[in-house]
This record gives sequence, structure tokens and C-alpha cells, in this order.
Amino acid sequence: MLAGSTLLAPRRRDLDFQLYEVLDLAGILKLPYFAENDRSTADAIVDAAYELAADYFEPSAAELDAYEFRLQDGALTTPPRLRSALGALVEAGFFGVSFSSEDGGLQLPMLLTTAIGLAFAGSNNSAYAYAQLTTAAAHLLAIFGDGEQRRLWMRPLIEGRYFGTMALSEPQAGSSLGDITMAAEPAADGTYRLRGSKMWISAAEHDLAENIVHLVLAKIPGAPAGVKGISLFIVPKFLVDAGGTIARRNDAWVTGLNHKLGQRGVVNTVLTLGERGECVGYLVGAPHDGMRQMFQMMNESRVNIGANAVALSLAAYEYALRYAKDRPQGRSLSDKNPLGPAVPIVEHPDVRHMLLRQKAIAEGGLALVLYCAALVDEATAAHEKTQREEAELLLDVLTPVAKTWPSERGVESTSLAIQVLGGYGYSPEYPLERHFRDQRLNPIHEGTTGIQALDLLGRKLRLKDGAGLRLLSRRIEAEIAAAREVSGLEEEATHLQAALETLLRVSATLLAAQAELGAERALSGATLFLDAFGSIVVAWRWLAQARRAAGNPSDFAAGKLAACRYFFRHLLADAEVALERLEKLDDYVWDVRPEFL
Amino acid sequence: MLAGSTLLAPRRRDLDFQLYEVLDLAGILKLPYFAENDRSTADAIVDAAYELAADYFEPSAAELDAYEFRLQDGALTTPPRLRSALGALVEAGFFGVSFSSEDGGLQLPMLLTTAIGLAFAGSNNSAYAYAQLTTAAAHLLAIFGDGEQRRLWMRPLIEGRYFGTMALSEPQAGSSLGDITMAAEPAADGTYRLRGSKMWISAAEHDLAENIVHLVLAKIPGAPAGVKGISLFIVPKFLVDAGGTIARRNDAWVTGLNHKLGQRGVVNTVLTLGERGECVGYLVGAPHDGMRQMFQMMNESRVNIGANAVALSLAAYEYALRYAKDRPQGRSLSDKNPLGPAVPIVEHPDVRHMLLRQKAIAEGGLALVLYCAALVDEATAAHEKTQREEAELLLDVLTPVAKTWPSERGVESTSLAIQVLGGYGYSPEYPLERHFRDQRLNPIHEGTTGIQALDLLGRKLRLKDGAGLRLLSRRIEAEIAAAREVSGLEEEATHLQAALETLLRVSATLLAAQAELGAERALSGATLFLDAFGSIVVAWRWLAQARRAAGNPSDFAAGKLAACRYFFRHLLADAEVALERLEKLDDYVWDVRPEFL
Repeated sequence: MLAGSTLLAPRRRDLDFQLYEVLDLAGILKLPYFAENDRSTADAIVDAAYELAADYFEPSAAELDAYEFRLQDGALTTPPRLRSALGALVEAGFFGVSFSSEDGGLQLPMLLTTAIGLAFAGSNNSAYAYAQLTTAAAHLLAIFGDGEQRRLWMRPLIEGRYFGTMALSEPQAGSSLGDITMAAEPAADGTYRLRGSKMWISAAEHDLAENIVHLVLAKIPGAPAGVKGISLFIVPKFLVDAGGTIARRNDAWVTGLNHKLGQRGVVNTVLTLGERGECVGYLVGAPHDGMRQMFQMMNESRVNIGANAVALSLAAYEYALRYAKDRPQGRSLSDKNPLGPAVPIVEHPDVRHMLLRQKAIAEGGLALVLYCAALVDEATAAHEKTQREEAELLLDVLTPVAKTWPSERGVESTSLAIQVLGGYGYSPEYPLERHFRDQRLNPIHEGTTGIQALDLLGRKLRLKDGAGLRLLSRRIEAEIAAAREVSGLEEEATHLQAALETLLRVSATLLAAQAELGAERALSGATLFLDAFGSIVVAWRWLAQARRAAGNPSDFAAGKLAACRYFFRHLLADAEVALERLEKLDDYVWDVRPEFL
Repeated sequence: MLAGSTLLAPRRRDLDFQLYEVLDLAGILKLPYFAENDRSTADAIVDAAYELAADYFEPSAAELDAYEFRLQDGALTTPPRLRSALGALVEAGFFGVSFSSEDGGLQLPMLLTTAIGLAFAGSNNSAYAYAQLTTAAAHLLAIFGDGEQRRLWMRPLIEGRYFGTMALSEPQAGSSLGDITMAAEPAADGTYRLRGSKMWISAAEHDLAENIVHLVLAKIPGAPAGVKGISLFIVPKFLVDAGGTIARRNDAWVTGLNHKLGQRGVVNTVLTLGERGECVGYLVGAPHDGMRQMFQMMNESRVNIGANAVALSLAAYEYALRYAKDRPQGRSLSDKNPLGPAVPIVEHPDVRHMLLRQKAIAEGGLALVLYCAALVDEATAAHEKTQREEAELLLDVLTPVAKTWPSERGVESTSLAIQVLGGYGYSPEYPLERHFRDQRLNPIHEGTTGIQALDLLGRKLRLKDGAGLRLLSRRIEAEIAAAREVSGLEEEATHLQAALETLLRVSATLLAAQAELGAERALSGATLFLDAFGSIVVAWRWLAQARRAAGNPSDFAAGKLAACRYFFRHLLADAEVALERLEKLDDYVWDVRPEFL
């Protein structure tokens, strides 16, 4: 292991650059809704987060990953250092940072809370997931819960006394939620009795909190078929009395554990409700409105997944970089003297290339997810209604991209980090194989890449007659216009303009094809489209970074310009090729019958 | 898990196609050296291998992967089912299949033995590694060992009574073997005393055989610096008397175990020699000739790694395909009726695409490694000297490609197999995450991808003034000419011709640049070059398959044509783009200083 192994990512210099130079956190903090805090508070909170991540999260990550959860009489214990890490997070008030003051939170912008989360997610992905699940559940109740639900369930979640889960999937229904069979029978007292099984439920049992609040999708008898008949229920582990005191165990039990390749510290369970017919649930909002409500949480979760993916890619990159600078091996290619001193492996061109590619992916992804977080803040708190609506529209289009591109490219990026270390990268004595395993989940959970691709090409680009894509295009063009004025970025500005034109042209072709050729054929390249779309969006965010770095003589700025250049020549160019291929509409994948495979 | 989970790969139909229709195993079996066996023997041996893999290898793979090796007083026990699997392999004579009759083997062509190995490597990668290490060590002794070494060490390896290891790496010297410090002092009796530590040594301690024969790289005092001063030694776990009876324990001990992301069933160790000053070793061949000898073994091992990578990609693909045909979920994109029956996920375009891409990668890699295996046979046994020399030359150029392309693309391919299963793919209840973890080692061991890329672009393409590339080019052109005569393959023939011309042009540019720009700059894209080179070579092997499939009305043939077409439109086209990018020689990676990263 490297001496002083705590390498938190993103580097503070880069984070400040992204927040205050590329994006305008200072401006967001001046909006009335966020004005209770200013940059000095923000800096203090980031400092506290980095310290906590270094003291509690990073040191416990390997142990948590190796921990074997065991179910005994429906209960399970977690390792003490996980309890300490989450305890410290609760204690410092981090569960509440994104909630309104009224709800007991700090009312910080999403841009800042997303940034804070990166240090936790990068240093101990599994531990942080417990907090993310809890705040996601609380956010949902903050929007859709009634007064009592907010008082009894949301407040303890924000305080970190209770933890939350999302219980969507069932063994036979993962990506197709319309097929769930969990039943919710109305009871005489206005509550419901749930019965059924949920699969792949993270953190549905543990000893980390006083209570666990499951948000469960189920169907009320007589409900419409498919997703239109799904309702959302609060199903607590322990029922409470009107004063919020724990009253008795609910009939909601974890009956099995699922093992996983990565994110092993987040216990994954089979959750069985109502085996004794006594599982009490409380309807959230109106009947049959569950999918809409859950999508509120899922959209937030999707940007969070993108942020987690970025955090892992950055953490792996920082580790591989430090190793490459410290590890002597071999001679330079032009020095054939076997007695000469070994050089650090960063001096080998192939290693240099692998590191630069990781930087291009990881810091590009960082810029994208932070941009999306800033859109959430604009949508919430911008002065003008049109600003808020524009932010919402753009966020709609970018959500599948922000979830998927950093996840898919993050698998490649963390794999490159392993490769830099060679055999050591493959060893659990080093953190990189854990980052790689953790990362591999991100293209799967909260909607697989295939689902996100259908969402983008089959839905988001069609909404409001394509207004989202037009808006995105205007924003990209504004950046191109600004970059044209900057010496040294002319080539990149021209390149992005060409790529954008290709994207608009091919998007139009593919959208028209959905009507002409049928969905199957027109959407068979949706995943390739999403990746190319993502690379163009990230190129835009790289150009925004490069524009701020241009003319600055620092190594930091030189690195930004170099990574931007790399991104354009490799990933952006590849995206153009992919789009031109899709444009031909002769992708015959759909003609390949299953029996040919 | 799938019912009837034994899905051996490659399918017999495909294997026969590759061996007898695309390649000419029948012709090879008629060469005098191999003429003791014919197709009926060959078929019987393949049958036996598939049966053994199904009965012993596949059923023990998950257990072996989960097994925790523990070192106790320098010894360790292995799980009983590993012993049964390897015992069955030994019993059936599979350790000896590739050795000459004179050495007690079956004298089968490498093409056939490589094919046999796929079923074992795909069904239980770790278990088969013990056999591969042993036969690789025996091959080396068959070539370089003296009479006594062959009698005392090689024969028991071929019989499977002893197992072998390769002990090259040291903690400070992985890719840079010139820096090893293992010392070998001559003793009065003509033997040597070794002292030092080896790192990452697979299978250096276990209870699977009577003895373990380590082949160890070390330096004799006064040896030249660097790789020119390395000698090769036999270092057995137990010393034997002149009659081959075990005499006493040698001072060669495993002093630590390394854990790994994958291939966890192959125990990986720290091997310490001569801690008590009593480690006896026997010099193989002449002093300071160790690298040349070891490269004999490494070249064989490198093609084997490629074959292992193919085996894993094929096994993962077969599993994902069966799952996709069996698993109902969701509706077709054009059927919006939520009450309609769920369709098998193979009916979703994105899943279809992922499967087709896996097929293109896995079966293309299969064709490549089998072609290389056939070259080994030609180099050994072809009638004409020029044929033998040509085979040797071509094999030299293709070895880094056969090792790397299936490994790197195999990581992508096994990852796609996981994605087909979604959450289930991420679960150790299914074999895919194991395939993915096992696969991730292949771009690392036996020379990383970066090392292979330097070998190809920095060495192999320059040897004999580029004769290897010219020969490859002639072979590819011959296939193109043949394919042009086949209806339906004109487009592919023209496409490959264009790609080949690009390859030749860019190779010339990059080779010239090594002199003009210096090695660092000219080789900074070597890994990208290797991948593109590999895709062109595999496209050639796909065209060879498509030519045999064309005009055949079977589903099998339709699948071959579809995958070939996919490969050309996607992977071959991407390779051309990558080469054109390298041709500009403006890859500035080398200018990116480490402090910018």
C-alpha cells in the first residue's frame, strides 16, 4: 500500500475550480432560497467532509468490503467501524445538508451537497450508500408525505435516527416494474396490509439505526394493470405510536441475503412482507400514483449513481497516479543501459496514456454530474420562472446521460487504474480491484444502461417536441462561441460545433425512424447513441473547463488543457464515428434472429 | 441458476467448424509427425474432454473460487473437488496430449490440444491453470533439459505425478525481469544454491502432486547486467535420488499468500528460496541463457492466455444467451399492452445487440487462437522448410496479438454478459461475475498489454526488415481474394482490403517515426495500435469463417454471417479510425508531463 494511503478525490483544487470557476456556486449561494449560507460556510462544510472521510470512511472501506453479513433470526450485525463512520456522519449533521431549514436541514444547494458526497462515495462507497438511501427516502417524503408522515418518518430520517430503503424490484420484475405482484389490501383503519416479496433490496436490515423505513411499491386490489396501477407505501420495520415512540415489530422481515461482486458493504436482501398477514403499510399520496412518486426519488438517485461512479473513477485515478509516480520499474525506452536507475512507471508512455485517459474520463464525468446538480438548484431556486423551467427541461434530458456515461466509462477507467498497477492492481491489498467491483454495479442498478438508453432516445428527446435537445444545443453553442474567443481553443470549438451538428442530424433521423421503421429497429442502437450523446455532452463540459484554464501558466491548468485535448481527439471523435454509423439506419441487429446466436 | 447449468463452450458444432472447415486439422493429422492419430481419435478425445469438463470441472468451479487457502507450517490443503478434477485429468492422460510419444505423450497437434483446453478453461479456469503450468514447465524441459533432467523432472510432469510452476517475478521486478536479484551460487557438486524471493508465483505449494518443480530465473554471481545475465534453474520442492525417489525437502518454501480479484482457485504465493542456505537448484542449459529459454515457455503461455480468455468469453456468452432466451421480462417495444405476456429478454433490441457483440468478440477470438495453434503445428511438422519457417515467422508476429486482443476484448465481452443478466449477473449465484473477475487477469499476467504492444510495434514488426508483416499481409490478401468470389461477401472483402492498406501504411509511418521522433513518442500509441492490429487480424479470421458459412441455409451459418457483418461494421471500422488517428503522429501524450496529471 502507498504510504499515507488517504488520497481523497476530487482534489480540493479541482473541486474549487469546478464549483466556483466553471460553475457558479457563489451565485447560487446568493439566491434567496440558499442565502443563509455563503462561501465561507460552504468551505467549512467541505473541509469537515474531507476530514470525516479521511478519518472514518477511507480507513474502514477494506474491512467493510471483506465483512460477511450473516442473518440470524431475521437480524444482522454490522462491523463496528461502519457504525462509527455513519455515526460520525449523523453526528456532524450530514444527513440533513440538502433539506430545508423548515424540515430541520441546512438548506444547502444540491451542487454543494453532491460535491460533498464525492469524498464519501470515493473513499467508502458502501458505507455512504446507507446515507444516500436514507436521504433519498426522506426527500420523497418531503415532497409527497402528509403532515403526519413527515413528522413520524421523514424527520427521523433527516436526523439519521432512522434509515431508509427503496423496495422496488421483485424476483420476476427488475426492469419491468409494471409486473410487480406485491399486494396491498386496505384495512379498516385506513392503513394497508402488504403481502409479497421484494428482491435486491439494499440495507433492508441492520443495526445502524433505531428503525428502518422501507418505501415499497405495491398494487392495491383492482388497480389498473402495469405501471399505472402501482402505489407507494411506507412500511417501517418497527411501528411507532402517535408520539413517534417505537411500539412493536412490523411483519416485514429480511428472509435472505444476496451476495454481490462489489458494493459488498451494503447488505443486499430479500425482503418478505406479511408472511403472518400483519405487515402494516401507509399509503403515500394518492392510490396508483406510486410510479410518479418513485420516479422523483429515482431521478435523484440516478444523478447520484453518476456521482458515485465519478467518485470511484476519481479515487482510482488518484491512487494509480500516485503509484505511477512512486513506483520505479524498468528503464526509459530510449535508455538501453540495464545498469541505469529504474524510472518511475509514469515515465513509460503507455502508463502515461492510461493515466491521461482516466483523467479525461473521471474529471469530465465530474464536470457533468456537477453541472446536473447545479441544474437541480436552478430548477428549485432561480429567480425567473423560465430559468427554473429551462433547468428542469435540461435536467430531464441529461439525467439518463449523467447516470450512464460515468458508470459505463467508469468501468473502463477503474479497469485502467488496475492496469497501471499490474499484478498489484489485481490484489485486494490495494483498493483498485474494490473500486472496479464497486463500479461494475453502476451500469446495472437504478435502471440499467439499456433502460436509460430507451429513456433518452425513446422518450426524453421526444418530449415537448424536442425542446430539451434544442435547449441543450443552445447551451453547447453558447460555450462554443465563448471558446472561440479564447486563444488555443479554436480547434476544439470547431470540432465540438461539428459534433453537435452531427448529433442533431442523427437524432432527427433516429426519431423519425421510430415512426417509420418501428421501435425495435429504430431503437436497436439506443445504447450506442447514449454513449455518443454522453461523450458530446462531456466534451462540452471539458471545453467549459478548458476555457477557464486557458492562459493560466499553472500545472493544474496545463493538465486541464491536456485532458480536454485528449478527450476531443479520442472520445469525442469516436462519438462522431458512432453517430455516423447509426445514421445509416442499416444496423441490422434486429434482423439477427435469436436462433442465429 | 439455469436448469442444466452445464453449458460447455465452444459448442461442438462450432468447434468442428473451426477445426475442420475453417482450419485443416484433418490435413495436419496426416502430416507424418501427427499421423499416429486420425479424426476418429481426435473426436474421441474431444468427447472425453467435454465429458470430463462437465463431470468434474464445471461442478467444482464455484466452490474452488470461494475456497480460502490457508498456509500452515509452509503447507496448504486444497479442496477435495479440485483434487478430483485434476486427478481425473491426470488419469485420462490429458497432461501428456501435446508431448511426443518418445516422451510418453500422445503427440497430438497443438490445434487439437488447444481446442481441448477450451472446455476445461471455460468451465473451471482456476483448476485448469494447474495443468497448464505443469505442461508449460514440461515443454520447456523437453526442449532445454538434459537427459537426466528430462528423466527426473520432465517425465513425472508429463505423467502428472509432479506439478510445475514458473517463478519469474520478484517484488521489485515484474515487467522488468532484468532487475531480478535472486542469486544462484555454484556449489562444489555442480548444482547451485539459490537465495531470494519470488512474488506472484502461482501454484507453488499445494497437496495436488507428489512434488512441485519450480522453474526459477536467477543470476549467477558475475553475470552480465540485465536480461543477458539471467539463468534458468530447476528448483524442486522435494529433492530426489538418482532413481527418482523422493529423498528430502528442499529449502524452497512458500512464505506468504497473495489474494486476488479472480482466478482465486489458483493459489498465488510468495516463494522464498534458501532461507537456510540450502536451496538446491539445477541449471538448465547454459549459464545466462535463461531469458531465451523462458521465452520459449512464455510464448507458449501467451497463446494459452489468449485461449483462456477466449474460453471465458465463450462460456460467459453461452450462459448469457441461454438466460436471455429463458428469462421473460417486459413487453416488446411495440406492444404497449401491460397485460400481454412478458417476452424473453432476447427479444429486446439492446439485449440482442449485447449478445451479438459478445459472439463477434468471442468467436472471432476463438478463430484467432486456433489459427495460431495451427501455426505451431505447421512450424513443427510441415513438409517443407519454407512452410515451417513461414509459420514460425507469422506466429512471432501474432503471439502478442493472440495474447492481448482476446484478453482485453474479453473483459468487455464478459462484462456484457453480466449486463444481460442485470442484477443476477452481479451475483455470485451465477457464474458470470466469476468469469469477469477471472478474465481481468488476462491483460496483466505473462506480460501486460503495454508490454505486448511494445513487443509488436517496437520489435516484431521490425524483425527481418518487416518480413512478418509482409507475410501476414499476403495471407490476408489471399483470404480477401477467395472471399471476393463468394456471393454476399464482396462488401466485407473490399472493406478488409481497405483496412489492410491502412494498416500497412500506418505501420510504416510508425516504424519510421521510431527513428525520427524517438521511441517514447513513436510508441506512446503502441497499445492503441495493438488493439487495432488485433481487430484487423480477427476480421480476417471472421472473413475466413464467413466464406465457409456463405450459401449454407442453417441457423448456424446465418449466425456466423451475422456476427462477421457486425464485426466488420463495428470493430473493424473502429480499428481503421484508430489507425488513422495514430497516423497523424500528433499524439502528444508524451508531452503531457507527470505534474500535469
